[in-house]
Amino acid sequence: MCKIETKVLSVASAKAPFEKTTMERRELRPHDVLIEIQYSGICHSDIHSAHGEWGGGMFPMVPGHEIAGVVAAVGAEVTKFAVGDRVGVGCFVDSCGECEYCLSGEEQYCTKGVVSTYNSLDYDGNPTYGGYSQKIVVTEGFVVRIPDGLPMDAASPLLCAGITTFSPLKHWKAGPGKKVAIVGMGGLGHLAIQFAHALGAEVTVLSRSLDKQAEALSFGADQYFATSDKETFKSLAGRFDLILNTVSANLPVDAYLSLLRVDGTLVNVGAPSERDQYHVFSLIMGRRSIAGSLVGGIRETQEMLDFAAEHGIVPQIEVISADQVDEAYERVLKSDVRYRFVIDISTL
Amino acid sequence: MCKIETKVLSVASAKAPFEKTTMERRELRPHDVLIEIQYSGICHSDIHSAHGEWGGGMFPMVPGHEIAGVVAAVGAEVTKFAVGDRVGVGCFVDSCGECEYCLSGEEQYCTKGVVSTYNSLDYDGNPTYGGYSQKIVVTEGFVVRIPDGLPMDAASPLLCAGITTFSPLKHWKAGPGKKVAIVGMGGLGHLAIQFAHALGAEVTVLSRSLDKQAEALSFGADQYFATSDKETFKSLAGRFDLILNTVSANLPVDAYLSLLRVDGTLVNVGAPSERDQYHVFSLIMGRRSIAGSLVGGIRETQEMLDFAAEHGIVPQIEVISADQVDEAYERVLKSDVRYRFVIDISTL
Repeated sequence: MCKIETKVLSVASAKAPFEKTTMERRELRPHDVLIEIQYSGICHSDIHSAHGEWGGGMFPMVPGHEIAGVVAAVGAEVTKFAVGDRVGVGCFVDSCGECEYCLSGEEQYCTKGVVSTYNSLDYDGNPTYGGYSQKIVVTEGFVVRIPDGLPMDAASPLLCAGITTFSPLKHWKAGPGKKVAIVGMGGLGHLAIQFAHALGAEVTVLSRSLDKQAEALSFGADQYFATSDKETFKSLAGRFDLILNTVSANLPVDAYLSLLRVDGTLVNVGAPSERDQYHVFSLIMGRRSIAGSLVGGIRETQEMLDFAAEHGIVPQIEVISADQVDEAYERVLKSDVRYRFVIDISTL
Repeated sequence: MCKIETKVLSVASAKAPFEKTTMERRELRPHDVLIEIQYSGICHSDIHSAHGEWGGGMFPMVPGHEIAGVVAAVGAEVTKFAVGDRVGVGCFVDSCGECEYCLSGEEQYCTKGVVSTYNSLDYDGNPTYGGYSQKIVVTEGFVVRIPDGLPMDAASPLLCAGITTFSPLKHWKAGPGKKVAIVGMGGLGHLAIQFAHALGAEVTVLSRSLDKQAEALSFGADQYFATSDKETFKSLAGRFDLILNTVSANLPVDAYLSLLRVDGTLVNVGAPSERDQYHVFSLIMGRRSIAGSLVGGIRETQEMLDFAAEHGIVPQIEVISADQVDEAYERVLKSDVRYRFVIDISTL
């Protein structure tokens, strides 16, 4: 069997425009799955990577780690999937499989370091190329099943934005009796609202302005407050068990900590490039915590997809063609998307 | 019954020297206990308060919240103590008693705000005066019993330095199989080592230099590393479940976070006056947390004293006379004490 040719959307260097070209995927190993990609979501981190903002960008680069497609072929020893299965791939495509974190299903914290879906080297030293492409080859252990109840286009953003918010909500026990605030209502935030609501928590959205209030309530939020209104921080003081911050800009951390109850936690899933600052007193006076969370493991990603299908949770998306990706990047940078762009790969 | 006169050591204004004078304690209410103080520990926060560094200092001020003494009289309805009992008082002497935190025995987080042992107003609006004095009147609910196995002089620092370190070690489950680092080896740190060791954790001390290594090992530390040696941060990367930071200066937070395992927590019990800084990535990449902890509740303070007596845990102290407090403050500021000054109140 030969290597597999695929059309891709790639950038030749940092900030270069996207161009349609072709690449080869590796020939199928015994545990590999060949996926015909149908949809690929655009994550903000794609933009950071393609623009070379996080350092060490490997070019040419094919971004994309929110992949939904159909199995087109399987390796000789694949047991988990068959041709025709609806599947997804998220932020990473391999891990060591042997460390305590891999063994406990938290591959994202693999001590050897996961192989990211793109802009990374696999364990053989070959660069990885992501989901802005027609075909991808992934070992079956890093492929998840997309339940029948989820549309393929809307499923794709769940593979990153979905698991990134679902995992910390589960880890910090968002559920009945818990008051959860979601900071920011973009691609991550609008999914976080839906998950937190479906998990049974009381959900409050904290967003800069009141612009998105009606939509937030339609996603299941119980309350909505504008952070531009200083009264918000007075009226909500000491209220939340958990604040999930989906915003990548630097926040006034002490102000947000003041909204936590005793033993409350402010969890960050977006990372600003500059350091955040806080007064230790803000933590001490209520035994509060600041934490961070990185996507989620494969098992939990499957759990998240099943949960989303069961509860009718889908991202609100705008499907674009392969020709519109440069424009979409510009619109993401202006927060001009409600709430996630998804590339229709059939247009590639 | 009249008000009760007591000798005290007080400062008339911020940074004024201590002077011996007299004050009145309130007459005993039905639930009050009159304590003849024998020893009073000197906490670093006494110095911040007496020097007016934390703002809002109320003068004249009688510091001291590490109080060990004997019950000299009890109010008509006191059931918990009798004359002659060996007792202690810590950082606070009253709380609302009705909020969820008071009801759960975590009075330090009282939503109405606790009444601190000194430099505070009680719920009647009267200033409180602390333990650098011969007598104090405290409601029985905020008095704890000093077990027979503990010497009175060495018991006093347990009332603040002891509970401040014991409580977070318990809360974050320091115990068998857990790797705990103690940052700083002063009044708090040298007790934290003993508690963490007695709780069954593997204990590593991180201190600026190797000067205190032998003593740290004698307190039960398994390992000791100098933070001035950059190799320390490489060799201990990803090692600890819990880091208890007893140092009140600003730390290079990201460097310490790099020493934590996945799901590890850096807990601060000392508060620098300037903000700390951290990269959110340091948290995200290992689902790590930064937290803070404030002393402990009354029930847990009693548990800590009983645990200390059972395991032979005592602070290493230097007993001083009432005339030496100004000098002792200067020595504390130069870290020239191993490890806690205790005032012999009989010299007042």
